[in-house]
Amino acid sequence: MPVKTIKPTADAHQYPLLIKQLLLSSQRYAGSNEIVGGNNGKRYSYAEFYERVQRLANVLTEAGVKQGDTVAVLDWDNPRYLECFFAVPMIGAILHTVNVRLAPEQIVYTMNHAVDDLVLVHDDFLPLIDKVKSELKTVKGYIHCTDAAEAPEAPFEVLGEYETLLSKALPEFDFPDFDENAIATTFYTTGTTGNPKGVFFSHRQLVLHTMALAATTSMNDSMQLLQASSVYMPITPMFHVHAWGVPYVATMMGLKQVYPGRYDPPQLLKLFVTEKVTFSHCVPTILQMVLSSEKAKAIDFSGWQVLLGGSALTEGLAKAALERGIQVYTGYGMSETCPLLSTTWLPLNSTDLSLEEQVRIRTKAGKPVPFVDMRIIDSKGRFLPHNGEDMGEVVVRTPWLTQGYLNEPEKGAELWENGWLHTGDVGSIDSGYTLQIKDRIKDVIKTGGEWVSSLDIENLISQHPDIELAAVVGLPDDEWGERPHAMLTVKGGAQLDQAAVAKHLQPFIDEGVIEKWAIPDTVSVVDDLPRTSVGKIDKKVIRQQLQK
Amino acid sequence: MPVKTIKPTADAHQYPLLIKQLLLSSQRYAGSNEIVGGNNGKRYSYAEFYERVQRLANVLTEAGVKQGDTVAVLDWDNPRYLECFFAVPMIGAILHTVNVRLAPEQIVYTMNHAVDDLVLVHDDFLPLIDKVKSELKTVKGYIHCTDAAEAPEAPFEVLGEYETLLSKALPEFDFPDFDENAIATTFYTTGTTGNPKGVFFSHRQLVLHTMALAATTSMNDSMQLLQASSVYMPITPMFHVHAWGVPYVATMMGLKQVYPGRYDPPQLLKLFVTEKVTFSHCVPTILQMVLSSEKAKAIDFSGWQVLLGGSALTEGLAKAALERGIQVYTGYGMSETCPLLSTTWLPLNSTDLSLEEQVRIRTKAGKPVPFVDMRIIDSKGRFLPHNGEDMGEVVVRTPWLTQGYLNEPEKGAELWENGWLHTGDVGSIDSGYTLQIKDRIKDVIKTGGEWVSSLDIENLISQHPDIELAAVVGLPDDEWGERPHAMLTVKGGAQLDQAAVAKHLQPFIDEGVIEKWAIPDTVSVVDDLPRTSVGKIDKKVIRQQLQK
Repeated sequence: MPVKTIKPTADAHQYPLLIKQLLLSSQRYAGSNEIVGGNNGKRYSYAEFYERVQRLANVLTEAGVKQGDTVAVLDWDNPRYLECFFAVPMIGAILHTVNVRLAPEQIVYTMNHAVDDLVLVHDDFLPLIDKVKSELKTVKGYIHCTDAAEAPEAPFEVLGEYETLLSKALPEFDFPDFDENAIATTFYTTGTTGNPKGVFFSHRQLVLHTMALAATTSMNDSMQLLQASSVYMPITPMFHVHAWGVPYVATMMGLKQVYPGRYDPPQLLKLFVTEKVTFSHCVPTILQMVLSSEKAKAIDFSGWQVLLGGSALTEGLAKAALERGIQVYTGYGMSETCPLLSTTWLPLNSTDLSLEEQVRIRTKAGKPVPFVDMRIIDSKGRFLPHNGEDMGEVVVRTPWLTQGYLNEPEKGAELWENGWLHTGDVGSIDSGYTLQIKDRIKDVIKTGGEWVSSLDIENLISQHPDIELAAVVGLPDDEWGERPHAMLTVKGGAQLDQAAVAKHLQPFIDEGVIEKWAIPDTVSVVDDLPRTSVGKIDKKVIRQQLQK
Repeated sequence: MPVKTIKPTADAHQYPLLIKQLLLSSQRYAGSNEIVGGNNGKRYSYAEFYERVQRLANVLTEAGVKQGDTVAVLDWDNPRYLECFFAVPMIGAILHTVNVRLAPEQIVYTMNHAVDDLVLVHDDFLPLIDKVKSELKTVKGYIHCTDAAEAPEAPFEVLGEYETLLSKALPEFDFPDFDENAIATTFYTTGTTGNPKGVFFSHRQLVLHTMALAATTSMNDSMQLLQASSVYMPITPMFHVHAWGVPYVATMMGLKQVYPGRYDPPQLLKLFVTEKVTFSHCVPTILQMVLSSEKAKAIDFSGWQVLLGGSALTEGLAKAALERGIQVYTGYGMSETCPLLSTTWLPLNSTDLSLEEQVRIRTKAGKPVPFVDMRIIDSKGRFLPHNGEDMGEVVVRTPWLTQGYLNEPEKGAELWENGWLHTGDVGSIDSGYTLQIKDRIKDVIKTGGEWVSSLDIENLISQHPDIELAAVVGLPDDEWGERPHAMLTVKGGAQLDQAAVAKHLQPFIDEGVIEKWAIPDTVSVVDDLPRTSVGKIDKKVIRQQLQK
């Protein structure tokens, strides 16, 4: 009688999911596609790219980097950074993508906390590192990265300049197999309180995220974000959630990729035109900035596919972009979720939809992507119905969620409960499985026993023709608990006060879109709204400023 | 000092890859798409489908099926079968898709060998099971499947009729999590010698195959096999390598699916037209049969995407199909590989290519899909260069290869060597990573110290206007070792002999396309070529017939 159950044998047939496998298909599919450095004009074929990844692996190994060591990068978006995305984890080390927009003391904190061993540092950050070098307790060496034709002298001792080291290294490296659960990358989220927290992802997680993202961005013929003919340019930095993981997808697919360096609108627009970019992703404020730049007026944007995320895409911005021919979509996720959880999903008949319907669909958080189990729960942890009405905290399960916070297991308890990752976002899910984010739990305004979504009010306010950006926060109120306040930026020196805002909102109250208690009691007009290091509107700072 | 390496914790955050997760996105994306039973006219929404999967899980559980048990299915392609694709593995049991085209004694062999516990059996196979029932040593019960409005009486005791059992079962089932390496499916390959061998695939393997297949079939805008608007109808049976795994992809994507029942050309053509099918996959002989049927002449096939596999797509058939507007592609793989290894990959400029160039690209085995590492090796196991010239055995690594043969670990040694699965196929790979299969190692004709690809000769012979199908085999020869023989079927009673074939091949010899020793010495014309149970030309039988 034969045995009943067979356990797969743990031998050579096993195939751990490793980042190196994403490179298997790159050269096969790429054809003549190149990886372009927008800030230094360098262009690489995929064959050259693969050779450079191997050279970098030899440079790192010769610099003493071993499996489990951490390699930090302080750089702008560049093909060099993409080489680090692959070479560092492929030798079994951990890539720490340092958030260069943090304050110096926070950068030091994250580099010590992640236990960085080797640091790649661009010209622009040499003065910073020079100043804090003595505080970096674990770093054993530095590699100097430059975009200048003649590398400026580093003010401290370095192992060498990146290109020089690569040119001297051997062009072949035999990348090993190892446990797919090995940590591949780490980076820090800027929480609203306390020190930044490190999230981390394994090879397995990044590979699965890449596969799901590839399917999601390709399989809907109403919205083809990534196809073999696409030209990809990120406009969310590579240090931030691996530029949403899209560089891994684009490389697996062998697409033409354009890395723009610093995010300067004229430079972005120039690259968009000259490199014929078809797909980008960014936070809404960046799209707003690009669109409102003088140079943008003369550009034909039609067909540009842009995935927005990081904060809510307002209906006003979505409409303005669609009217310029930009196909905007919402992606929802967070640093802790690698990040993709859901995206806009246009129905098959989407070309028949009116602009208003398009805007409504595209500004929602969309449908969860394959392998994402998403629910909403009430304050007692009970699942709420998917009726588009009930609001609850969004919780998720999927194979690409951070296991916790790096070196701080106690903080993970805030994130994980009963096997679900708690996003801290409040939303509703409708019967078609579309998520609509209403607010951060922390930003919901609790007034007179009711919950008011600050995002809903912002959406309506932003439709005022004179208003550029709106942030609504709850301020403490003795009678009502909290009352909404709107902080605004306006177009061309327009004059606006609370009465004007209330007047603009009145029709929405009449139509039953919002309740009358959602009208802000107070309004302030500012030159610019406070932003976080990744360009999101910083409501924590707004509340602090208003309560001074 | 914080710890240096963090092991992900094996707790609730872990997310095993399980077939149930493929259903997470189905209903979200499906909209009004249905799963259609072509043979009984039944149509299910994805919500109904999911409810039926849950009901089936309850039926199976109530029938005593436990984790690790095996459930066998003898049925035609049908939504019922798709329900089994999900419900059986989702409760932790193993789905045995029985090859109903095998001889009765081989069916008995496979059912005993797989240790089947419960059997689902369609009307058409009741007489067979009735006859062999006493020989089925491990089966504890039967469920009767019917497409008739009034189920005919089963000639032996059954637990009940499928629809009746489903209607009585509860519509909810809480599918458990378990080890992603648990076996999900098994089925038998019909080897050229000895008993059928069982291959088996785990949940992890099927999920990864599904994800890679979804990305591969969607991401090339020159050849979009599967998109949200696609309508899928398989024409390779579900019992054979899970209909190449496409039902799992189509379900994950929530596509409209059409299951045609038995593969009768008029019925297939009717469904193609009425259900507006856009994507199918089949073996070349089936496409040939469909195209040459009388009813096909009046049908507009333009835009039909058809992936061919199982045996080589000849240039003659590819040209005929393209001229009818059918977008044909080659997929390469085998039962042991789940099956997908490589597919046609059209370049971005493919619309500019001539018909001849299109045919040449589409008849090759294509480029390996993401996550497939593919090489060719010589007889000493050394890797050969990818220059389009060197011929060697194709070996592969990828996460979805059978670990060996079911309950016969000793036979796996033939398949696996040095960590690579040996396909038994001989081919070349060019500098653009395109594989061209030259032959089965067993079918290569060794004549006068030279290797001649039987497929190459067949390709050239099949361009003769009077020839329908050609199979070339090596016959023992005292002087040369082997000499080629061509077995042919001809169109409309045409007369053909060896001299006619030699005359047809002479220009190819003059052009240096083949060597003169590749011309068959002998030719036989037959009414039909011997086929295997899955419709492939059976060269083993041809050799046996010729050597009698």
